Amino acid sequence: MSGISRAVTKRFSSTITIKPTPSKTHLHQPLPSSSFPSGYLLTGVHAGVKKKAEVLDVGIILSTSKRPTSAAACFTRNAFKAAPVLVCEQVLAENIGKARAIVVNSGCANAVTGKQGMEDAWAMVKETDALLEPLTSDTGVHDTLVMSTGVIGQNLPISKIIASIRSQQRDQKTRSLGSDFNSWERAAKAFMTTDTFPKLRSRVFTINGVEYRMAGMDKGAGMIHPDMGPPSIGSLHATLLGAILTDAAVSPRSLQRALTYAVERSFNSISVDGEMSTNDTILLLANGAAAERAGINVQEIDEETNPSGYELFRQELTEFAIDLAKLVVRDGEGATKFVTVTVKGASTYQDAHKVASRISTSALVKTALYGEDANWGRVLSATGAAPLSAPLHPDRVSVTFVPSDGSTPLPVLVNGEPENVDEERASEILRLEDFEILVDLGGGDDAEVARYYTCDFSYEYVRINGDYRS
Amino acid sequence: MSGISRAVTKRFSSTITIKPTPSKTHLHQPLPSSSFPSGYLLTGVHAGVKKKAEVLDVGIILSTSKRPTSAAACFTRNAFKAAPVLVCEQVLAENIGKARAIVVNSGCANAVTGKQGMEDAWAMVKETDALLEPLTSDTGVHDTLVMSTGVIGQNLPISKIIASIRSQQRDQKTRSLGSDFNSWERAAKAFMTTDTFPKLRSRVFTINGVEYRMAGMDKGAGMIHPDMGPPSIGSLHATLLGAILTDAAVSPRSLQRALTYAVERSFNSISVDGEMSTNDTILLLANGAAAERAGINVQEIDEETNPSGYELFRQELTEFAIDLAKLVVRDGEGATKFVTVTVKGASTYQDAHKVASRISTSALVKTALYGEDANWGRVLSATGAAPLSAPLHPDRVSVTFVPSDGSTPLPVLVNGEPENVDEERASEILRLEDFEILVDLGGGDDAEVARYYTCDFSYEYVRINGDYRS
Repeated sequence: MSGISRAVTKRFSSTITIKPTPSKTHLHQPLPSSSFPSGYLLTGVHAGVKKKAEVLDVGIILSTSKRPTSAAACFTRNAFKAAPVLVCEQVLAENIGKARAIVVNSGCANAVTGKQGMEDAWAMVKETDALLEPLTSDTGVHDTLVMSTGVIGQNLPISKIIASIRSQQRDQKTRSLGSDFNSWERAAKAFMTTDTFPKLRSRVFTINGVEYRMAGMDKGAGMIHPDMGPPSIGSLHATLLGAILTDAAVSPRSLQRALTYAVERSFNSISVDGEMSTNDTILLLANGAAAERAGINVQEIDEETNPSGYELFRQELTEFAIDLAKLVVRDGEGATKFVTVTVKGASTYQDAHKVASRISTSALVKTALYGEDANWGRVLSATGAAPLSAPLHPDRVSVTFVPSDGSTPLPVLVNGEPENVDEERASEILRLEDFEILVDLGGGDDAEVARYYTCDFSYEYVRINGDYRS
Repeated sequence: MSGISRAVTKRFSSTITIKPTPSKTHLHQPLPSSSFPSGYLLTGVHAGVKKKAEVLDVGIILSTSKRPTSAAACFTRNAFKAAPVLVCEQVLAENIGKARAIVVNSGCANAVTGKQGMEDAWAMVKETDALLEPLTSDTGVHDTLVMSTGVIGQNLPISKIIASIRSQQRDQKTRSLGSDFNSWERAAKAFMTTDTFPKLRSRVFTINGVEYRMAGMDKGAGMIHPDMGPPSIGSLHATLLGAILTDAAVSPRSLQRALTYAVERSFNSISVDGEMSTNDTILLLANGAAAERAGINVQEIDEETNPSGYELFRQELTEFAIDLAKLVVRDGEGATKFVTVTVKGASTYQDAHKVASRISTSALVKTALYGEDANWGRVLSATGAAPLSAPLHPDRVSVTFVPSDGSTPLPVLVNGEPENVDEERASEILRLEDFEILVDLGGGDDAEVARYYTCDFSYEYVRINGDYRS
């Protein structure tokens, strides 16, 4: 059977109904300065990577604590790692889990940029190192981690970026580094590409009687977005970046273990369209400045020497990372639903996570959510397609739709048998903006429950990509 | 951060532009009776599973050859297997790779139907066995394979189906079993659910001087479709079913090995939305009737005793299965593109297949295709996310867009470096209905090339699911 090759040129119009996207203004509110970790200076500036004047596109975060700052990172598992990712890996390896600064640019991903891309990423690191003096390591290693997001396949306008970093030198009138809400917000804005609001959160917690603070920002949007550069040069796509800062003192190895644990349950538990990008990076700095604030000597949190303190820290970090990650889902273009997919009763946490991931990223499930359809058949298909460590028992699987308003959950499948469902009630739950799909695989409660966060697949998704040329 | 729970009730209108779907009439043409394999009787009838009068919903295929008929099958890997799948597995196991008949119904998948579902599937088998007398095995095993497709979670209207099978008994005036094109077409129509045309193909080939014929039908559509029953009872989703019949004589074990090989390169190499369903089944019967037609004694094709004959048969079967599978892609609702994704230079065929699959099923890539965007960045991301047996070398990867009209291919990425692409030319190729995306992983030509067939992600996809309630 041969293909028919012809240009499709005719177009015609049709009227359709689009559901409005829920308002997002409540997701970005001012935060009290007393909730921000001590010992950090931040800013966001307009370097000119993005064309539009005044739009912030370079962000700088410095740790000014006298103590060494531990650093941890999680990177994309994509085989094509962007230059900034490769440079970060090297900096952390040489500096054995320490770093004092983060520099980020948006508007250009510095990915698939060859040798020049690597040189440019190192240049950003060195220029930011210079801002840290006299706090930089004297061992000759670098202290800065770098992130980029934006168009792939284009080189950075590196001279503009270098100029903007130099504008933050101590002796410059243009220096805008600060520690108030406005400074944190400017840094968060510099991350943004397709995001519709800067994603910034803070948190205060206590361990062993000492108060610690954590704040962070991330970027990413739950749906893909149109290309912003000429198509065949390269394209933008939903990179996930995050920077979390705390004034707790944590050993490098425990910081990394805690971050890996937290990322699995947060940034790796959200449905964003498409694959893990070439640039995905989550960074975490812990500078121990809480001790300075408290005026006391605080021992570093470490899993070996203080297991209960470590577990409390890891728990706080995980909940915080989940909060940040959820913002990405809520910012899905055109998304009208925020759905939590909970999987219990698996053999292992990894199995539960695989099932939750499969359900949450299934196009069939996501369009059903958009159509407000309590569609357990598609949830089941996705469940049954996940490659698990132990076989599923179809006659032990139950699916329940759980409303977020506290009213009675609705079982639709119980131990493999479909229920006679009250259609009215199903529609009621599915019309809510927030609800939960609870899947019990029937294997008991030994394994940790997995929670995944997803949004619906909307018409906007395709319209943007299909019609942007018209 | 708490969720906001409120019903989203306001709707508003907006005008958008939809591209027309290419015509499909050329995909269904009459086939010459001389191309159909000997020794088969077929029909399609209206039992009443589907509500609409006269719509065919039960299909029957009988092998009337005097020789035993070898049978092979490939089934869904989903953990939730529908009753007909479980019954087929049992029939083939008991009958050690032989079967003489296939019965199929559309309109109801007989999935998630418990004990009753199993009883109903066995009833369909027994009633069809009765049509075979006196050719049925006298060893007490069953001779019929059963398939179902349609709504999940609802029981079959089994009495209607039984009545329709009995209507084909020898002594019935209603008997419509035949061997002409019309009979084959009726059977193919009985498979259809969301298909817009019956998918039927035939093929003639020669091995060792003997002419053989092969014909078959499949069903499935490249895009998902709206639910056809009340939503929470269950839903329809894109099940892939296929039945291939040949008059070659092939040993059961070689038939199974050939089918597994062919399915990997055909039905497992097409992008259909969503997961493998609860019902996916491909069946293959080989009844040896070509010998009767030729009036000669022909030895059974077997990999051990006749390796070259086996390889030729396997090749013909694979090409035929690819033809049938491509029809499913071309029938994607609203799809405007037919794209072949070719991956060469991998370490193994399995790696090449994984990369091709990742690219072909990526929502990011598919919407780019709809937008006629030569987007190598998304192709690259999908490539880099596939879990391979050997690591990728980013600086050895090349991506080329190949037009189907014989004009010059367009390289967009060569050995990891982006090309300066002629935008006009890129648009020209992407405006064609058919083209190829060629990815070379740079590992040389030792491994077999993988070819995957996909269509674009269109607005229709979401509109159908999002608006079906309005």
